[in-house]
Amino acid sequence: MSTVNGVNKHKDRSALIPFSSRLKDGRALAQDVWSIFNALNLPPDCLNLGQGYMNFAPPKWVTESAEEALHTIAANHYSHPRGRLRLRQAIKDHYGPQFNRDLDIEKEILVTSGANEGMYSAWLAFLELGDEVILFEPFFDQYLASITFNGGKPVYVPLHPPSHDKQFSTSNEWTIDFDELRAAITPRTKMIIVNTPHNPVGKVFTREELEGIAALAEEFNLLIMSDEVYDCMVYDNKEHVRIATLPGMWDRTITVGSAGKSFSATGWRVGWLIGPQSLITPSLAASTRIVFCSNSPLQEAVAGGLEKAKNYNFFETQLKEYQDRRDVLIDTFKKLGIKYTHPEGSYFILIDISDIDIPDGYPFPESVLGRGLDFKACWFIAMEIGVSSIPVSEFYCEEHTHIGEVFARFAFCKDIDTLKAASERLQGLKKLFKKRE
Amino acid sequence: MSTVNGVNKHKDRSALIPFSSRLKDGRALAQDVWSIFNALNLPPDCLNLGQGYMNFAPPKWVTESAEEALHTIAANHYSHPRGRLRLRQAIKDHYGPQFNRDLDIEKEILVTSGANEGMYSAWLAFLELGDEVILFEPFFDQYLASITFNGGKPVYVPLHPPSHDKQFSTSNEWTIDFDELRAAITPRTKMIIVNTPHNPVGKVFTREELEGIAALAEEFNLLIMSDEVYDCMVYDNKEHVRIATLPGMWDRTITVGSAGKSFSATGWRVGWLIGPQSLITPSLAASTRIVFCSNSPLQEAVAGGLEKAKNYNFFETQLKEYQDRRDVLIDTFKKLGIKYTHPEGSYFILIDISDIDIPDGYPFPESVLGRGLDFKACWFIAMEIGVSSIPVSEFYCEEHTHIGEVFARFAFCKDIDTLKAASERLQGLKKLFKKRE
Ligand SMILES: Cc1ncc(COP(=O)(O)O)c(C=O)c1O
Ligand SMILES: Cc1ncc(COP(=O)(O)O)c(C=O)c1O
Repeated sequence: MSTVNGVNKHKDRSALIPFSSRLKDGRALAQDVWSIFNALNLPPDCLNLGQGYMNFAPPKWVTESAEEALHTIAANHYSHPRGRLRLRQAIKDHYGPQFNRDLDIEKEILVTSGANEGMYSAWLAFLELGDEVILFEPFFDQYLASITFNGGKPVYVPLHPPSHDKQFSTSNEWTIDFDELRAAITPRTKMIIVNTPHNPVGKVFTREELEGIAALAEEFNLLIMSDEVYDCMVYDNKEHVRIATLPGMWDRTITVGSAGKSFSATGWRVGWLIGPQSLITPSLAASTRIVFCSNSPLQEAVAGGLEKAKNYNFFETQLKEYQDRRDVLIDTFKKLGIKYTHPEGSYFILIDISDIDIPDGYPFPESVLGRGLDFKACWFIAMEIGVSSIPVSEFYCEEHTHIGEVFARFAFCKDIDTLKAASERLQGLKKLFKKRE
Repeated sequence: MSTVNGVNKHKDRSALIPFSSRLKDGRALAQDVWSIFNALNLPPDCLNLGQGYMNFAPPKWVTESAEEALHTIAANHYSHPRGRLRLRQAIKDHYGPQFNRDLDIEKEILVTSGANEGMYSAWLAFLELGDEVILFEPFFDQYLASITFNGGKPVYVPLHPPSHDKQFSTSNEWTIDFDELRAAITPRTKMIIVNTPHNPVGKVFTREELEGIAALAEEFNLLIMSDEVYDCMVYDNKEHVRIATLPGMWDRTITVGSAGKSFSATGWRVGWLIGPQSLITPSLAASTRIVFCSNSPLQEAVAGGLEKAKNYNFFETQLKEYQDRRDVLIDTFKKLGIKYTHPEGSYFILIDISDIDIPDGYPFPESVLGRGLDFKACWFIAMEIGVSSIPVSEFYCEEHTHIGEVFARFAFCKDIDTLKAASERLQGLKKLFKKRE
C-alpha cells in the first residue's frame, strides 16, 4: 500500500475475497429498476409516481407516540425479539377480530423490521435447499433474491392480464389459471406466496380464488405466505378476504403486515407476522439472529397508532383519501383514452404502453437501452412530460418479461395536489402515443 | 376447525409444515441464556447487571435530532439501502481519520439495522456452504447461529484465561496461542472474526496480536470481520488498534460499528459496516434483500449525534463515565478478595465463581439445573443478593463449556447509583463463597 498526501491508495485487489455464489442468483447484484428510475437520474422537477412511498408524513398523533417513547429510557433500548409487549397487544386488539381469533401475543405475533425482514425470516426458517416457492407474476421484486438467498427455487405462475383490446379493465380481470397452478406443484413445492391487495396490479384476490389456492395448499401440504401489507387499501367496498381465515388455513398461513403502509411511515421499518405458533416460533428464531429485535421507539409509535386509530376514525378516513387519489389518475387515463387497469386495492395503477410512439434515435441511457419497451416508455414519459413511473417487466422472471413489458406502474400514494399536477402533465401523453384509427 | 364462543379452536397440527434443517444447528431453537436470566424470572427488585444494555437514555441532544427527523416528510420514509446520505457523511467524517482514509460514502460505508444485521449481511454475502469461520472463544453468542444459518461452519480457537491462582488479572492476559490459530486454518477457512474490545472478556487486542492475525489472513487469503462495536469503551489510555489499518488489511477487513453502543441507544437498531467496495457491495446486496433499509428517523438522529459529538466533548466524557462505572465494580471485587478480570475495554467484568458455595438441594429451576456451575452460580447470586449476571459458558461451544463455566459476567453499562447499590449488595458475596485458607 502506498500513501499519497496522507491518504492510502491501494492497488486493486477487488477479487481478493470472492462473494458467495448465492449472490449470483435472483438478480442480487444487477442494477435494479429503483436505481435506474431514481430521482437523481430524472429531471429535477419530475413528479415521482415511481417509487411506492408517500410524499406526506405519518399522522401527527402517531409521531407523537414516537416522541413520547424517545423521552423514556426503556423504549430506547433493546426490545424483546418478539416485539414490544405493547405493540403485540395493539396488534392483537386490532387484528384479532379480523382473524376471528383471540390471538396469543406470546406465540402468534412476531414484530419484524418491516414486512421485508419478516418475510425474509420466514423463508430462512422454512426453506430447505431446493424447496420450490410458487410466485404469481407479476410479483414484488424483493421476493426473488430473498427466496434464492435462502436456498429456495422460485416457480412462476402468471396472473393473466385482460385482453389488450379493452380500454377499461379491472384488476380483478387479472386471473389465475388453476390448471396452471396445479401443474406448477411438484414434490419439492413448499410454499405459495399470495399478495393481496397486489403490487403492482392492484388486484384483491376473491374468496373463490383464495379457496382454490387453499384447496391446493391442503391437498399438497403447502405453506402459504400471505403478503397483505396493503390491507388498508381496498376500494369500492370490495371485501378483503384473509386466506388465513378460510377453513383449515390458519395452521398453514403466515400473514404479513406493515406499519409502513398502514401509517404512511415506510421508513420506520416496523412490520409483523401473524400465524400459528408452529410457524411463528421458527420465524422468531430466524429474526432473532438476523436483527435481534426491531427498533423500539417506532414500535411504541405504531402501538400508539393502532391504539388511537379508532378515536381518529383513521383507517376509514385514510381509505377515502386513497380512493380519491386513485380516482384522480383513473379519471385522467379514462379521459385520455389510455388503456389502464382499475385497481381495487393497493396504491398502484397500470397503464398499457404498447402504443407509445418513441422517435427513432431517442437518447436513452445505457441502463435503459438493453431493456424492454416498458423501460423505454417510462424513461421517455419521465423525460418528455415530467412524471415518473416504473416499468412492470421488472416484476416478471426473465422468460416472462414480455408479458410485463407493455405496462407502466404509477403509484398514487402521493398527496392530492401532486396527483392533480401529475394529471395536468399527463395530458401530454396524448402526443406520445400513436393515434389509433 | 371448531368454533367455541366465536373463537376458533384448532386441533394441534404443529408438525404440519416442517421448519428448515438449518434451525437445528447453532442452538437456534434452544432456550438461550437471555430468556433464562430475563428480569421476569428473577426477583423483581434484582439489580440487572446481566443484559448488556444501559439503564439510562441516549443524550438529549441526540434524541432531539430524532424528533427533528420525525417532523419532516422524507425522514419518515424509505432510506437508500446504503443508509441516509447525511449519516454516511457523518460516519465518514468521524471514522475516516481513525482509518487514515478518505472513506468513499458511495462505496465503503453501509448503514445496517444494528451491528447484528450488518454482520448477518456480510455472512450471507460471503459464506459458501461449508466455509469455515474461526471464532475466538468466548464469543458473542449471536455469531453462532448466524454463521450456521448462512451455511458456515464455526471453528473455535480459545482465548486462554490467566491462571486461576491470581486474584488480579487483566483482560490482556487472555491470550491467543498462535500455533493453535494456525492449526485451525484449513483449505475451507474463509474468515476470522475478531472482536475488540471484547464481549465478554473486556480484552482489547494488542497491535502484536492483530499483526499475528493479519499475517495469517494474508498467508491464507482470509476475510476478517472485525466487530468493534465497543470502540468507544477503551480504558486506561490503552490504544484501540483497528486491524483494517494494518498494512494490506484494508482490502480484506469489514469493520463493524454500532450506534446502539456508542450513543446508549441499543433499541435504535442502527449500525454500520466499513470496508473496501469489494466487501461492501455484496454486503449491500444482502442487506437490501433482508431489511431493504434501516429505519430513517433514527439514522438521522445518529447522524446528528456524530455531527455534534465534538461540541459536547461527548465521547471523551462518556469514556470517563464508563471508566468510573467500571471502577466501582473493580473496587468491590478487589476489596472482597474475589478473583476478577480487569477489563481494558467494553463494559463487562468477569469474576471467577469456582469457589461458590451452593447448599445441597438449592431449589434451581429446570432451565438452570441441567447447565454448568456458572448457570447455578449466577442464579444463586441473583436470588440470594439481588444482583443478576450472565454465565459465561454460553459464550463457548459445547465441547469447551468447561472453560467458561467458572466465570460470571457483570455488565457495568448502568448508571453509577445502580452500580453503587449493586456494590453494597455484592458485599453479600463473601458469605456465598468458600473461605480460602
Ligand atoms: C407487496 C409488498 N410487500 C412488502 C413490501 C415491503 O413492506 P415493508 O416496507 O414493511 O418492508 C412492499 C413495499 O413496497 C410491497 O409492495
Ligand atoms: C460483541 C457484540 N457485537 C455486536 C453486538 C450487537 O450490536 P447491535 O445492538 O448494534 O446489533 C453486541 C451487543 O451486545 C455485542 O456484544
